Amino acid sequence: MLKIADKIFNSRLFTGTGKFNSAIQMEEALLASGSELVTVALKRVDMHTDEDDILLHLKYPHINLLPNTSGVRNANEAIFAAQIAREALETNWIKLEIHPDPKYLMPDPIETLKATEELVKLGFIVLPYIHADPVLCKRLEDVGTAAVMPLGSPIGSNKGLKTIDFLEIIINQSNVPVIIDAGIGAPSDAAKAMEIGADAVLVNTAIAVSGNPIQMAKAFKIAVEAGRMAYKAKLGAIGSHAIASSPLTSFLD
Amino acid sequence: MLKIADKIFNSRLFTGTGKFNSAIQMEEALLASGSELVTVALKRVDMHTDEDDILLHLKYPHINLLPNTSGVRNANEAIFAAQIAREALETNWIKLEIHPDPKYLMPDPIETLKATEELVKLGFIVLPYIHADPVLCKRLEDVGTAAVMPLGSPIGSNKGLKTIDFLEIIINQSNVPVIIDAGIGAPSDAAKAMEIGADAVLVNTAIAVSGNPIQMAKAFKIAVEAGRMAYKAKLGAIGSHAIASSPLTSFLD
Amino acid sequence: MLKIADKIFNSRLFTGTGKFNSAIQMEEALLASGSELVTVALKRVDMHTDEDDILLHLKYPHINLLPNTSGVRNANEAIFAAQIAREALETNWIKLEIHPDPKYLMPDPIETLKATEELVKLGFIVLPYIHADPVLCKRLEDVGTAAVMPLGSPIGSNKGLKTIDFLEIIINQSNVPVIIDAGIGAPSDAAKAMEIGADAVLVNTAIAVSGNPIQMAKAFKIAVEAGRMAYKAKLGAIGSHAIASSPLTSFLD
Amino acid sequence: MLKIADKIFNSRLFTGTGKFNSAIQMEEALLASGSELVTVALKRVDMHTDEDDILLHLKYPHINLLPNTSGVRNANEAIFAAQIAREALETNWIKLEIHPDPKYLMPDPIETLKATEELVKLGFIVLPYIHADPVLCKRLEDVGTAAVMPLGSPIGSNKGLKTIDFLEIIINQSNVPVIIDAGIGAPSDAAKAMEIGADAVLVNTAIAVSGNPIQMAKAFKIAVEAGRMAYKAKLGAIGSHAIASSPLTSFLD
Repeated sequence: MLKIADKIFNSRLFTGTGKFNSAIQMEEALLASGSELVTVALKRVDMHTDEDDILLHLKYPHINLLPNTSGVRNANEAIFAAQIAREALETNWIKLEIHPDPKYLMPDPIETLKATEELVKLGFIVLPYIHADPVLCKRLEDVGTAAVMPLGSPIGSNKGLKTIDFLEIIINQSNVPVIIDAGIGAPSDAAKAMEIGADAVLVNTAIAVSGNPIQMAKAFKIAVEAGRMAYKAKLGAIGSHAIASSPLTSFLD
Repeated sequence: MLKIADKIFNSRLFTGTGKFNSAIQMEEALLASGSELVTVALKRVDMHTDEDDILLHLKYPHINLLPNTSGVRNANEAIFAAQIAREALETNWIKLEIHPDPKYLMPDPIETLKATEELVKLGFIVLPYIHADPVLCKRLEDVGTAAVMPLGSPIGSNKGLKTIDFLEIIINQSNVPVIIDAGIGAPSDAAKAMEIGADAVLVNTAIAVSGNPIQMAKAFKIAVEAGRMAYKAKLGAIGSHAIASSPLTSFLD
Repeated sequence: MLKIADKIFNSRLFTGTGKFNSAIQMEEALLASGSELVTVALKRVDMHTDEDDILLHLKYPHINLLPNTSGVRNANEAIFAAQIAREALETNWIKLEIHPDPKYLMPDPIETLKATEELVKLGFIVLPYIHADPVLCKRLEDVGTAAVMPLGSPIGSNKGLKTIDFLEIIINQSNVPVIIDAGIGAPSDAAKAMEIGADAVLVNTAIAVSGNPIQMAKAFKIAVEAGRMAYKAKLGAIGSHAIASSPLTSFLD
Repeated sequence: MLKIADKIFNSRLFTGTGKFNSAIQMEEALLASGSELVTVALKRVDMHTDEDDILLHLKYPHINLLPNTSGVRNANEAIFAAQIAREALETNWIKLEIHPDPKYLMPDPIETLKATEELVKLGFIVLPYIHADPVLCKRLEDVGTAAVMPLGSPIGSNKGLKTIDFLEIIINQSNVPVIIDAGIGAPSDAAKAMEIGADAVLVNTAIAVSGNPIQMAKAFKIAVEAGRMAYKAKLGAIGSHAIASSPLTSFLD
């Protein structure tokens, strides 16, 4: 089982709430996914009414909310957003997303490290979204990050694990859980991430924009289980050339 | 459900019997895989005793045997081998494997077409192992093949779907089931094959040489299910650049 | 230097005549490429006038014409087309292209082998366009092919060397020159083909449809030279992980 | 022509001095490469003798030295090293390399930004070696970097352009020259980097550890020229499926 900070997770598939056609569809897909950690953009939480749309659909004992700071551009804004989120959602967990560029939404390594350090001091459990940067991962560890969330490819691109060479280095070196975030476009990508030893994956776009989000959520659920199972069972080596899987017959000679 | 010739299959994971450490391990792994079609090299069937090792471990009502001609070098040898197999195993299904080259075990397109045509006339249900050659697939259809089994990468290499550009053309054009055979090295490869619309996959080496064949068989079982589910639910488009999965917040502005 | 049949080539870049905006542009691009073997679709040769457009632009002592059978669908049509070409262009060299499918233009392995065998008997120097099929290459050798022309990816797709795993096997096993044909979309693809040991490449679409065919022809010319030079100088090994190219300094310790 | 700070370069191939078998071999290879910017690890410069080995072999009017800080672990060490280099080599150009990890030599984004900012204030022309991180590139621009040097893959790995999806974003957004540094293993990789619009590449290991460094240097020289030429001539689009490069013939119908 996966432990992050003080929480135990049975499911290694984390999810998000963006891009669904309706709140009902979102709710059904997230239930189908089995996900126990669901990230919510602070902006989408309506703090002025008692009956907030999204949150009402996430009130299940097995679902932990993970507010994210999507939309902030620097450490100060992120810290401010995290504090609002803590009060509004009554959790000290925060997914730190700092992306100054509106086109590719690539994260800022400098501001992310700064904000992580400060938020840890303020008592937050910090899960920072970052580029697949092995040195940044170690520095985040040094300041007390609860996990690292390197990207597979640009957010929302569905391009899969374009950073795999660096993800392997990160997984190899990390002392905190490694959660692959962003870019996972298909269950096979999620399975692959788990096969190389990731502790979990976060999937949102690929479920929400698929033809059938509920079925796709189920597909991701079992693909993650398959990948984890394969990691533990250890994959065979990749050969430089073929070796027959059936011995050559001599019965005709 | 998948139909090949007159048979219906609930499982889209086909398996083989080579390279396991023991017959017991093989039996347990194949049961864990849920596979309903298991290929056996004719050479490995001992036709001179009543108590053949391998076959004894495959006597389950849900398991259909698929004898293969591994080791033959041309159409004549293949036809002879198929006839022996039909008598010995009491099935007219045959996996046609003709690979004259002992190093890479790549299949021979000319002899494979010739043997398929002849075997169909002799009443066989033929499943030929071939390169990922779209034109050859159509020609095999023309002579009555029951399915086509294009390779993902060289047999036993675990290299995955190196032929994916051609597999997509084959799947797009085929009127018979397409089973990806050879090279699938990890559950993520199997899931990917199913996501692009393959009807089934055949996996042997990746299960047999893994650290834990029984667990790996389970992992492949659910990865194939995940991939099929994703295919039916339709994957989202791959983006040229990122689109945020959470709307940008304006709450700080 | 490269020898095919009885001819010596200084340039390892072969070219084609399709898709240029004008015959003048084609002529200038082909001159810039330095190519000594240029393929021409038989259909485009006007056999009823003395002043055929295309051929007039290819009358250079260093340019050898290589008529191709593009458009034929089987061996018989190919043989007939080759005979017409021999008479019309006064050469017994023929690029054999048999692709029954009008969408992907993938070659037919069966008809190609049959036509090669027949054409060799009829005194032709045959260069067959084929899928990257190692066994087919050996069979073509057996019937006297002058070279093999496996594809990198579908004709005109500019997708590059999608078949590289199989091209390496073909190059490794071949006793006749291996010319990578189809799919090469950029000078880097051509360089890569040469680096893995191809004897030559054939490029048409990538030059003709570029923004500046004459400059692109030059770029391909030197990329092919670079790749060949690198092949002969032997590339260094690809590392599993990094080794510093500069020794670590101790001057600060 | 390429301009960095106040210098104009005719060659877009930058080189390094590590891993050659001898200083003579290095000198000949660098001359063959046509390189006008050569990086030298500070550690390798012997500051206590008048007749330093390496520097004696680099005394050519067309060669500019680019001392690097390889081996330092943080900004302070880097600044100190840069100052020593400026005095010893009489240049204010510095290639900033800060990699605290001795195994993969991945660069530290935080310390690199800090050191760049400080060194620019101290009058240096700074060329920082970094991960392919688009946001970091923009921040380095903000503090006055002269260029950015994102990696293709881990130093010395010869793995090529594993970061290509991010290099394209960087090139697309950059206002300073982009030099692809580290991981380029073959001339085809260098050509590819230039084709996507890089301003230059830096190659060391792939030349030094090849079977023939002088020939390999020449191969890189022309591959870089080919890639640049192709970039300017504009590559054709990559097709989703094939389009014939020769029109289909109707002459047989």
